[in-house]
Amino acid sequence: MQYNAPLTEMQFLLKDVFRASEVWQSVPALAEAIDMDTAAAILEEGAKITQTLIAPLNRSGDEEGVQFDQGQVITPQGYKEAYTTYAESGWVGLSGEPEYGGMGMPKMLGVLFDEMVYSASNAFALYGSLTAGAALCIAAHGSEELKQTYLPKLYSGEWSGAMDMTEPQSGSDLSQLRTKAVAQEDGSYRLTGSKIFITGGDHDLTDNVVHLVLAKLPDAPGGSRGISLFLVPKRRVNDNGSVGDSNGVSCGAVEHKMGIKASATCVINFDDAQGYLVGKVNRGLVAMFTMMNYERLSIGIQGLGCSEAAYQLAASYAKERKQGKGSGRGLGGEADAIVVHGDVRRMLLEIASLTEAGRALSVYTGMQLDLAKHADGDVKKRAADQVAMLTPLAKAFFTDKGLEATVNAQQVFGGHGYIREWGVEQLVRDVRIAQIYEGTNGIQALDLLGRKVVANRGAGLLALKHQIERELADLGAAWQPQLQQLLALFDALLEKAQELANSSTKADAINSAATDYLHATGHAVYGWMWLKMVLAAEQGNQQPNFVERKAMLARYFFERQLPKAHYHLQIINQDPSVIMSMPNEWF
Amino acid sequence: MQYNAPLTEMQFLLKDVFRASEVWQSVPALAEAIDMDTAAAILEEGAKITQTLIAPLNRSGDEEGVQFDQGQVITPQGYKEAYTTYAESGWVGLSGEPEYGGMGMPKMLGVLFDEMVYSASNAFALYGSLTAGAALCIAAHGSEELKQTYLPKLYSGEWSGAMDMTEPQSGSDLSQLRTKAVAQEDGSYRLTGSKIFITGGDHDLTDNVVHLVLAKLPDAPGGSRGISLFLVPKRRVNDNGSVGDSNGVSCGAVEHKMGIKASATCVINFDDAQGYLVGKVNRGLVAMFTMMNYERLSIGIQGLGCSEAAYQLAASYAKERKQGKGSGRGLGGEADAIVVHGDVRRMLLEIASLTEAGRALSVYTGMQLDLAKHADGDVKKRAADQVAMLTPLAKAFFTDKGLEATVNAQQVFGGHGYIREWGVEQLVRDVRIAQIYEGTNGIQALDLLGRKVVANRGAGLLALKHQIERELADLGAAWQPQLQQLLALFDALLEKAQELANSSTKADAINSAATDYLHATGHAVYGWMWLKMVLAAEQGNQQPNFVERKAMLARYFFERQLPKAHYHLQIINQDPSVIMSMPNEWF
Repeated sequence: MQYNAPLTEMQFLLKDVFRASEVWQSVPALAEAIDMDTAAAILEEGAKITQTLIAPLNRSGDEEGVQFDQGQVITPQGYKEAYTTYAESGWVGLSGEPEYGGMGMPKMLGVLFDEMVYSASNAFALYGSLTAGAALCIAAHGSEELKQTYLPKLYSGEWSGAMDMTEPQSGSDLSQLRTKAVAQEDGSYRLTGSKIFITGGDHDLTDNVVHLVLAKLPDAPGGSRGISLFLVPKRRVNDNGSVGDSNGVSCGAVEHKMGIKASATCVINFDDAQGYLVGKVNRGLVAMFTMMNYERLSIGIQGLGCSEAAYQLAASYAKERKQGKGSGRGLGGEADAIVVHGDVRRMLLEIASLTEAGRALSVYTGMQLDLAKHADGDVKKRAADQVAMLTPLAKAFFTDKGLEATVNAQQVFGGHGYIREWGVEQLVRDVRIAQIYEGTNGIQALDLLGRKVVANRGAGLLALKHQIERELADLGAAWQPQLQQLLALFDALLEKAQELANSSTKADAINSAATDYLHATGHAVYGWMWLKMVLAAEQGNQQPNFVERKAMLARYFFERQLPKAHYHLQIINQDPSVIMSMPNEWF
Repeated sequence: MQYNAPLTEMQFLLKDVFRASEVWQSVPALAEAIDMDTAAAILEEGAKITQTLIAPLNRSGDEEGVQFDQGQVITPQGYKEAYTTYAESGWVGLSGEPEYGGMGMPKMLGVLFDEMVYSASNAFALYGSLTAGAALCIAAHGSEELKQTYLPKLYSGEWSGAMDMTEPQSGSDLSQLRTKAVAQEDGSYRLTGSKIFITGGDHDLTDNVVHLVLAKLPDAPGGSRGISLFLVPKRRVNDNGSVGDSNGVSCGAVEHKMGIKASATCVINFDDAQGYLVGKVNRGLVAMFTMMNYERLSIGIQGLGCSEAAYQLAASYAKERKQGKGSGRGLGGEADAIVVHGDVRRMLLEIASLTEAGRALSVYTGMQLDLAKHADGDVKKRAADQVAMLTPLAKAFFTDKGLEATVNAQQVFGGHGYIREWGVEQLVRDVRIAQIYEGTNGIQALDLLGRKVVANRGAGLLALKHQIERELADLGAAWQPQLQQLLALFDALLEKAQELANSSTKADAINSAATDYLHATGHAVYGWMWLKMVLAAEQGNQQPNFVERKAMLARYFFERQLPKAHYHLQIINQDPSVIMSMPNEWF
């Protein structure tokens, strides 16, 4: 697949929209690590490796898939060599802790590289993403010994990581876990049980796989309060840090899936495997959430990466494919390129306007992650609150819009979009999992509306609205109608949050409204991103065409996408009874 | 895949909603052919064959796919035997002309059987659908000799049919066709050229494949006014009707696709192949449209069939899978079936409310096809007008909603929805083509808004609105708000039709608004179907639970689906400039 990293867009976001330089200067840990020149160089290197090393493996990896042969998981041809190069170049440890061998780069930059990797190949990207997520969790909750043993190997990409939560009877509902962990005299634990849907659970890319496993101690309380987190390596680690004997961790099967076929989705069996507690006993979910939140943002970015890749394919096809005559904007000849037709433009504009806003939100969320980690006091607290609110939104909204983007791009191709050789149908199949794993988008919506909005009676959203008013105070008169439209939308969302907080049938009302609430909020937040981009483009040092194009896309977004928020608001305001009253057996 | 034909629903539509008996009695050709008992018996036999013969081949057909070996196209194991049984039981000729061996059954019944076959297997269904469509075209436009030679073999399923339109440079734009036809002294023609994306273009299910091919005579005028239609058999037909020598028709390749993998999508090469004119010289598109309109409705029904199959899988999974606790409607035990959760119900209700309305519209459209064919005078004319308006709507709206339905059903399954073994991901892949082929849904939208609405200044829509007022005159007070909502929506659609008819930038305005107009109209028409079903359920002789369930789904539709029409109306009313003004090179 041909892929060109959108470097101009990315640098515009860092430099003009979010003034990364100022953010980094304000935080000592980052001021040392990075400046804009370094960031630009990293993005350029990232573009090179994703365009030339990873993207060319995407189609062949899909055709070949992961093989499972006598207990061995074999990745497609070229994957091992590419992964080794990728890891050796330091990309897996890009945002890792410098004291353990990571590059210490801000997440604000990391999200842009993540997007490139996903655009180039979803399946390839997952191996590194799970590894970086596992390292993040160990860095935050592991003992010093675990950090010293595992982090350098994870950052260097010699070993990889996996997140082992789901069991056959326990998916969205983790309280039903059955994997057991028994304490040993030496302070370690022995784990026995079976996990399913383990992305990168086993493969031939690295010497070891480091599993982060949710399990229950024999005397643990029932439900989700009795879950602990353990680090369980596939192979034991010798005292000198080298890989030792096998550790009772085996792959029982590899799933056959709709897409991401070069990503190994494994059944992983633990048979008296030695593990090490991460975080506190019975507090495993708290520790795992560090990894899960990281992965949720990463999976959101999978949605963005697919949207961008799909847009590039569709836009270039639309400018080449000649069918029919347009009305005046033709390019001459017997037929015009299909990009002149309104319905084709509609689809391309939709993808572009949503992808560019999503990318901006991903950088913003990365910035809040950096501030939550490195800043102090109120700044740290506010950033952490925003991360909590924006993570489920980004995960679900980026991926729902990601499916729509790939489907629209496929539609631009007509019949060729359905043929495997053109590559766009793979994007549809690959992105589809992103709406499901790391907590289905329905679960994200419940998290957003229930825990992040209603639980604080909309305080987080209200703070965001005030922030938006401040940030956009310099917006010119031409964009005031859009700004007012946006603020009114926030008011409507806040009003509903209050109403739900006071509702006597809160659980049903939240359950029935959550997905529509998330979509209404997503449109509102994208509107904010568009106005920030318009303002930054006008104030920055950009080419006139760049500024004008941004304004056109913003206008498109406000005229033709934002109105969807009002549909969702209308649904949110309907009585939940029509959802909840149908007897189960009538379905 | 487990599939149960929704016989109760189907009989409710025929008997109570559309009073098929009265329709059939009113038309001599149908009064002889069918009554309600026969219809019920046919549906029951149809349920049997689709459930037990076809559905079991669906997954294995997808895994195995069509093979192409040394010029031979080989369908998956079991296909040939099943197709032979299917054809011998008369199903291919169900709606065929009795004087040539067809069963003469009304389309009003045929659409319901079509839905069953698509629910059971998209790929399998296509072979029969193309054959029936080819027969329809020959019956309408072929010479008596062609009819006598080909129709009995097509109805019996011994031979199959294909529609050969697309060429590499000529997809949506047929004016660019290059396939040549040269007249011979014996009145036949010789065809040379290459066609792509030919569904069922070659395979091993039947002794012969009858191609209906668009081509140009050497002296034909340019553009679409110079296209003629030819019947070209894969193998020549001897004077005694038996299959003779090969006819210069060969399969050059079989496409690798996202889905419908057991359907042979072929490159077909014509090398001085003998063909016979169908219809008049240079009037090929008119003749082909008979087949194309038939196939468009059929492809719409592919969308419905997938929606129904997906609903059945998801509803049954939701009642079995236990995760989390609901709020009061629980089934006891540690966890509840996920059907108690609001967000799962939301998805199931959405699928059900759209699928049941779509099925009603398919029966209605079938009824209009029957009246357009068999009735006289004004009834015939009105029916033909409605068919023209409803065909693009059904094709695009059924299939757009079909993708949403299968995606929603897949989401109900969580992670299992992404695994091939569960079958629901195949439905997503299979249904996706239905939005693309037989004219992309964007083309359908242009046809609906441009040719079927604006061209007659909304006269067809206005007639429909008056019809709805008459049909729903007996609707009780409880449903008056919904009825008024619906009529207001028709008024808004009519107002826009008038405005567009008067617009000075009509082409751009139609191009930019067409897809949203189609979706707004689709919701309006579904609202009409829901009120018809509510009224018929109340007046009919149904079980109380049936009546109450229909009312609940109707209420759900009006509260949570119909409001989408207002979003689409808002978009239709935006200035097209934001769509049309972006320079081509900025995409």
